[in-house]
Amino acid sequence: MTLIVEKFGGTSVGSVERINAVADHLIKKHQSGEQLVVVVSAMSGETNRLVGLASDISDEPSPREMDVLLSTGEQVTIALLSMALQKRGNDARSYTGGQVSINTDNVHSRARILNIDGARIKSDLDKGRIVVVAGFQGVDFGGNITTLGRGGSDTTAVAIAAATEADECRIYTDVDGIYTTDPRVVPNARRLASITAEEMLELASLGAKVLQTRSVEFAGKYKVPLRVLSSFIEGPGTLITYEEEGSSMEAPLISGIAFQRDEAKLTIRGIPDHPGIAHQVLGPISDAHINVDVIIQNASAKGLTDLTFTVPRADYKPCMEILNQLVLTLGARDVRGDDQIAKVSIVGVGMRSHIGVANKMFKTLADNNINIQMISTSEIKVSVIIDEEHLEKAVQTLHDAFELESA
Amino acid sequence: MTLIVEKFGGTSVGSVERINAVADHLIKKHQSGEQLVVVVSAMSGETNRLVGLASDISDEPSPREMDVLLSTGEQVTIALLSMALQKRGNDARSYTGGQVSINTDNVHSRARILNIDGARIKSDLDKGRIVVVAGFQGVDFGGNITTLGRGGSDTTAVAIAAATEADECRIYTDVDGIYTTDPRVVPNARRLASITAEEMLELASLGAKVLQTRSVEFAGKYKVPLRVLSSFIEGPGTLITYEEEGSSMEAPLISGIAFQRDEAKLTIRGIPDHPGIAHQVLGPISDAHINVDVIIQNASAKGLTDLTFTVPRADYKPCMEILNQLVLTLGARDVRGDDQIAKVSIVGVGMRSHIGVANKMFKTLADNNINIQMISTSEIKVSVIIDEEHLEKAVQTLHDAFELESA
Repeated sequence: MTLIVEKFGGTSVGSVERINAVADHLIKKHQSGEQLVVVVSAMSGETNRLVGLASDISDEPSPREMDVLLSTGEQVTIALLSMALQKRGNDARSYTGGQVSINTDNVHSRARILNIDGARIKSDLDKGRIVVVAGFQGVDFGGNITTLGRGGSDTTAVAIAAATEADECRIYTDVDGIYTTDPRVVPNARRLASITAEEMLELASLGAKVLQTRSVEFAGKYKVPLRVLSSFIEGPGTLITYEEEGSSMEAPLISGIAFQRDEAKLTIRGIPDHPGIAHQVLGPISDAHINVDVIIQNASAKGLTDLTFTVPRADYKPCMEILNQLVLTLGARDVRGDDQIAKVSIVGVGMRSHIGVANKMFKTLADNNINIQMISTSEIKVSVIIDEEHLEKAVQTLHDAFELESA
Repeated sequence: MTLIVEKFGGTSVGSVERINAVADHLIKKHQSGEQLVVVVSAMSGETNRLVGLASDISDEPSPREMDVLLSTGEQVTIALLSMALQKRGNDARSYTGGQVSINTDNVHSRARILNIDGARIKSDLDKGRIVVVAGFQGVDFGGNITTLGRGGSDTTAVAIAAATEADECRIYTDVDGIYTTDPRVVPNARRLASITAEEMLELASLGAKVLQTRSVEFAGKYKVPLRVLSSFIEGPGTLITYEEEGSSMEAPLISGIAFQRDEAKLTIRGIPDHPGIAHQVLGPISDAHINVDVIIQNASAKGLTDLTFTVPRADYKPCMEILNQLVLTLGARDVRGDDQIAKVSIVGVGMRSHIGVANKMFKTLADNNINIQMISTSEIKVSVIIDEEHLEKAVQTLHDAFELESA
């Protein structure tokens, strides 16, 4: 018998009507012979309501009590979905994180799952029940309620799939799969039938946010077949796979193009070069809780060096202020900046074994008169920083050049 | 050190403002040297909101899932109250029913508490923490969430007081204690400094609904000193005590006067008398889920008997229909009814050892031209059924006759 874990987010269970629709869907799947575990989030809006109550009480509510509070959101959903399934004739059972021993560490609000006891779930499945589990939550060794932080329900689903050795873990979202790039930018972008977890991670971290990075990592660790589907449109979605040894030889050159708008670039020029410069510059930026993305350091003439990096556009001004201070303390020449840049990345496990992928990217952009300001590479990704006004053109011409519209 | 369990109902924690007020109160008590366990209900309105969601999903939601759903109400309150206490400097901890092992049977929606592990609570108290526990809920032996039904939070408070051997259990309500009778009817009604549990039970079941019967029974079983106080007005409230052997000799003759409006009386007359008549008449009434209160059977002439009983006024019509059917099947003469009656009861453990209390009641009513239609007695209570128009006069004259305005 096929055992499937399905996960529905807050929008998918955001109203009584949506919960009924999810119940209809599950009953149909169950009747087709699948054993089903369903992981659900809080109804959309509920978490905000609870956060609002807490902030009316305290500016700094304790993470432990926030977890007690927020975990009620999923608990409401599991009860309602179970009722809807029971009304349709299935003897469904709901479980909180604690009830199926989703054991976590004790880091409230962003706990990590340590282990799950799949026995109780399997016992219910064997009785023909659909099992409904609250996502996002667990218990620590002391029995305290914990929550897993952003994207936690995805992680719950993957962890349960691993613990029950499920055949597949399906994450229902508001998109019908992973695309070669954003269809709003490239109309002939193509839904990928499958993608490797590594590629998915690169695409996700670059802005194609469909799944939380953590749940993909978790799925990779336990080799859980993960599928992204739409909760609104029928379709096969995209299957996330795990590379077998040597299989990359046959992988397509590149799988997709990710991009990130709203970036800014800053350069501190003419710093007297000595070991530790990068740390001296980036330390204060990090202390200000600003995420630095691409970093490039070039030695310039006469023992001086330039350091360039990108940050989210919203952090451009505070970053500029920090650097202007550093110019004085480090004895650097000056600071330059550009807050109208964007990042474009090609991602693919295939590029590991195919020299020339990066070069093809650079040539394509050059042929289209798009100037590359910075380059950053990893094993399965090449990113370039360009003027934001060229973003759409860059993504479209790269999509064409790598023939991503055809499988 | 004094250990106190305090319980606040839904109105007392019905808003962020009220929760803050409860937190202020608790901090003051704690600073005065009391160890505190607080039991809270769901914020007023929350249970109705959840019930509404459930009934939108299913006409007949399963009791198990209703308990999963409704128990979130108290969980929200414990988190918010703990945050409010933490903001005021106490390292408060919240616990769901399951987390402090409030173990119940598995009768969902009206579970009974089997035992509580007080160790976890005591360990927190010893660290100077105020412990906040969700009322109304527990877990069965299988780890399923249960709820205790109406008045369940009172029962939780009493059970925790018993398990932790607390010095007192304080139930905060919207009244400032138990009165000799309803002050809206008798302006000189007096708040009782104390009342025995038995008297409290008789008063409660007769309409003076301050505490749920079950929590008083529970308190009596474990001899938990129980105090009823107002959550809005400062004051000592009323202490509920437990009779020691022989102490009833000194008890006041009667403690209070309870009454019940909106009653109706029905008589089925001329039933051929044979064993089982009462069952044959009252069985169909009970099957229709109608609560019968006072019952009187009189043999009349020629082997015929009359059966008279009272029911809530709202059930008068359906009752009349059932009886009219029974007249045919039992071969009785006819049915009479009166839906404008009321019940007045005097309650007191003292009447056990004082003959003449009932007679004084009858004489007082006779002196005031109030006709008694039915009489029912128990060890510590005498109830009479009278025409409803005389209710206020009856209660006032009895209150005067038994000198209840003075302690």
